[in-house]
Amino acid sequence: MDIPFATIERLAIYVRCLRHLKEKGVKKISSFEMAINTRTTPEQVRKDLSYFGKFGKTGEGYDVETLLKKLDKILKTKRKWNVAIIGAGSLGTALSRYKGFKEVGYDVKALFDIDPEKINKKTNGIPVYHIEKFGEVVDKENIEIAIVAVPTEAVSDIEGILAKSKIKGILNFAPVTLNLKTRRKIVILDVDLTQKLYIISYLIKNKWEE
Amino acid sequence: MDIPFATIERLAIYVRCLRHLKEKGVKKISSFEMAINTRTTPEQVRKDLSYFGKFGKTGEGYDVETLLKKLDKILKTKRKWNVAIIGAGSLGTALSRYKGFKEVGYDVKALFDIDPEKINKKTNGIPVYHIEKFGEVVDKENIEIAIVAVPTEAVSDIEGILAKSKIKGILNFAPVTLNLKTRRKIVILDVDLTQKLYIISYLIKNKWEE
Repeated sequence: MDIPFATIERLAIYVRCLRHLKEKGVKKISSFEMAINTRTTPEQVRKDLSYFGKFGKTGEGYDVETLLKKLDKILKTKRKWNVAIIGAGSLGTALSRYKGFKEVGYDVKALFDIDPEKINKKTNGIPVYHIEKFGEVVDKENIEIAIVAVPTEAVSDIEGILAKSKIKGILNFAPVTLNLKTRRKIVILDVDLTQKLYIISYLIKNKWEE
Repeated sequence: MDIPFATIERLAIYVRCLRHLKEKGVKKISSFEMAINTRTTPEQVRKDLSYFGKFGKTGEGYDVETLLKKLDKILKTKRKWNVAIIGAGSLGTALSRYKGFKEVGYDVKALFDIDPEKINKKTNGIPVYHIEKFGEVVDKENIEIAIVAVPTEAVSDIEGILAKSKIKGILNFAPVTLNLKTRRKIVILDVDLTQKLYIISYLIKNKWEE
């Protein structure tokens, strides 16, 4: 089944919303409330969920715990994933400290850098290796996901290293597109921190200035 | 005109793509190439751009510079925006160092925290103030956008401060929903760092395990 990418993006937001509701002890949620909490429309919620079979009965809303379990299963969010962060600069270090990752099953096993001052030390309890050890550590620690947090000028140096490794997915925070021709099967997702600021300014302009 | 939020999100990605093309000296781009570069479909690109009038001629592709100028105008990306970051911890500090913001017109004018060790010092050249000075500094520096980078447990302490301030938009990195009942006009956008990892794992699963 070919699920639109935008649906997958929203599923991840629904999971977050359902987690909060579950923690608060909420049992049922309508597609209307779900839409408000996730900034979409009730029609969109129903359409997104319809890809994966029938959830809940009309007029009764969704059972929070059941729906969360099913979405967790669809997104594979219940599995553990080992993660490496490339770049032990301020962003890489901040990401390695981010508690939210471990809570939902993403375990940062290693940081990589080229700075001799940082290598062979631990940052927040996570070992920092020289980038030339990347393939070896990925194998040893069963790392499947790499987070790229290097400056733009360092990106071309790590492309070959990533392409040769057993990494399956890359989350790229560098503001350039990664070019991994040799390993097309690697899944790459770009995180553009400025994109969100663009959107905020557009929304401000529309709400405050017109 | 009511533009779908998903379109605005994609416009911000088109801007990024067009900037790169312009830097590389590319003059023309088809909706097909644009779609590949931004992970969407040619139909989607054409539909998104159709909201804002007619761009380019059929079969000729878009003129990179003209389209970029128009999108910059729509998204108000040519204006300067002053930004405050709340939370001078590892994430807030990393965001204050992020060069990409200033390059596209977002100027971080102040950091806020409650830690006496950090206050009244400068981090990356940006002054760190006590959070109780927030309203005052926002007025003085004409700050319109706040980036929230505090731990979950500190969120409730800053909601009132944000609600009382003249802030127009908030980019929230804390993994909880902000509750600013008193100032409904404030635009809030959540950045969920774990959401992208969920999506990566889903894509890995689909590409590698099925």
